Amino acid sequence: MTAPPFSRVAVLGLGLIGGSLLQAVRQLGVEVVGYDVDSAAAAAASASGYPVAPTDAAAVHGAELVVLAMPLPEVRAAIASVAPHLAPGALLTDVGTLKQPVVTAARELAPGVTFVGGHPLAGVEETGWNAADPLLFRDAPWALAVEDDTPLASWLRLAELVCDLGAKPVPTTAVEQDAAVGRVIGLPHVLAEALALTGLAGGPLGLSLAAGSYMSGSRVARTRPELVTTWCDGNPALVQALDDAIAHLTGAREALADGRSVLPLAQAGHAARINWERRRFQPVELTPEVDALRALGQDGGWVTAVLRDDDGVRLLGMRPA
Amino acid sequence: MTAPPFSRVAVLGLGLIGGSLLQAVRQLGVEVVGYDVDSAAAAAASASGYPVAPTDAAAVHGAELVVLAMPLPEVRAAIASVAPHLAPGALLTDVGTLKQPVVTAARELAPGVTFVGGHPLAGVEETGWNAADPLLFRDAPWALAVEDDTPLASWLRLAELVCDLGAKPVPTTAVEQDAAVGRVIGLPHVLAEALALTGLAGGPLGLSLAAGSYMSGSRVARTRPELVTTWCDGNPALVQALDDAIAHLTGAREALADGRSVLPLAQAGHAARINWERRRFQPVELTPEVDALRALGQDGGWVTAVLRDDDGVRLLGMRPA
Repeated sequence: MTAPPFSRVAVLGLGLIGGSLLQAVRQLGVEVVGYDVDSAAAAAASASGYPVAPTDAAAVHGAELVVLAMPLPEVRAAIASVAPHLAPGALLTDVGTLKQPVVTAARELAPGVTFVGGHPLAGVEETGWNAADPLLFRDAPWALAVEDDTPLASWLRLAELVCDLGAKPVPTTAVEQDAAVGRVIGLPHVLAEALALTGLAGGPLGLSLAAGSYMSGSRVARTRPELVTTWCDGNPALVQALDDAIAHLTGAREALADGRSVLPLAQAGHAARINWERRRFQPVELTPEVDALRALGQDGGWVTAVLRDDDGVRLLGMRPA
Repeated sequence: MTAPPFSRVAVLGLGLIGGSLLQAVRQLGVEVVGYDVDSAAAAAASASGYPVAPTDAAAVHGAELVVLAMPLPEVRAAIASVAPHLAPGALLTDVGTLKQPVVTAARELAPGVTFVGGHPLAGVEETGWNAADPLLFRDAPWALAVEDDTPLASWLRLAELVCDLGAKPVPTTAVEQDAAVGRVIGLPHVLAEALALTGLAGGPLGLSLAAGSYMSGSRVARTRPELVTTWCDGNPALVQALDDAIAHLTGAREALADGRSVLPLAQAGHAARINWERRRFQPVELTPEVDALRALGQDGGWVTAVLRDDDGVRLLGMRPA
């Protein structure tokens, strides 16, 4: 590894993702500083030996990268609060599930600041600093939005950090990532909530007989409901995903009611899941251009290395075989 | 432990459940014999050192307990095949997910035989003898149907074996167990299939971004589709469960489309799941009577011990606190 692409990183919000990121980035040899509006979270991080600033303005002072890691409802206020205090040329990113609201807020509230929306696909039901894990991002896909107004050099610099963390930068746009997330994050959460509720609505006997399939199917219903809403609400792609899922379920329901089998749905679902598990990938070298990056993400690929030498940038990645 | 309640047990069907049971029962010191129509499964069990009979008639010869552990579509033929060969007083049971079809088949095809329908709530996506595990049933709920024509002594004898295996006999009826299973087994499987399919229908980018929530939500879509159909098809309770789930999903869909939040569903689902995890139980002593047993199961309880002494049977259990 050459020198990390940032020498000082500020992480605002020290919950599961922010806390894990603070710890992981420090282990790259980067100077880090954290901040949390919640004094208990700040105190916990400080007690663990991490530098924590008393204000967000102090945290971002001199930082080359500022990470917004607070819950989505607090992001707008945070951008407005720190924008005047950012160092010249500082890069702003976030780690939220939905990218469109944050890209919009950054353009509106910090128009002179370079913002690259990010979304690490990592997490467990537990939340807060005490659940933070510096290895949380190993092998995790990490969506990085490359919008029409995103400076390519900034995107590449952030992608390099994501690679250094052992994660997989997936080039995308805010619109495309939110559409995908509606299906693979929003939909699983809404289905888990519906299962958690409906599965046990038949009475105490069902509570006794609920076993592995109920347990894994409803696992993410353990997540705090307020967090689930920040991943679901306001995403039009989730409406479409729910329509599709409801259509499949209604088809199965009609089949059963008519004395037919759920086999067609079971076969299709099984094939989708198994094909997903069996995907294989091949190495590629990419032109460091926006169109090539977006195409890589659309095809299901990601960046594995951003290499710099005197001739410029070399970009390596993986794409489905 | 006193002497096991059966001295010789035959297990017909040596897949995951049957194979695990053969191994677990032998570890109680009981003489066991297996049988499988599939010669490869029979050879695998035999190669592992378990006695395997060449025919089902030979397997059940002299057995005090005969366990039907083949897939549901093969159960009717198996009952018809072994009924003439059962030892006098032999008890017949099964391990399938749905109880009504098997109770009906046993009454019809083996009217003079005592049948007690059973359903251990244990399993993984893997199938076959090679996935068998003698510890599979530890702490597993095990529905045992006590029908109006079930001899109580036979039910108690089987419950004693289930306790010896470290599992939890849940007294129920075929109708009640199938209703509960529609919600906690059938529904999670159909939802998992719908998620597996719909989640990935948005294109390759979604395949990259699918993470923990997709993975756990679609886990049981890894199960062979033909097995899933045996747990779902023909169960009217699953139609009702699907109607309820579809209603919740449609409500969430309408909320999102109207710019409202999924919070009400997320809160209700979260509460159901957390309350389920936090259930606590208290010890009870039961009258060994059918009504008391059924009431225990309906209340979410199970049997923990069947004790015999000169005064008769003592029955201990747990019920929700």
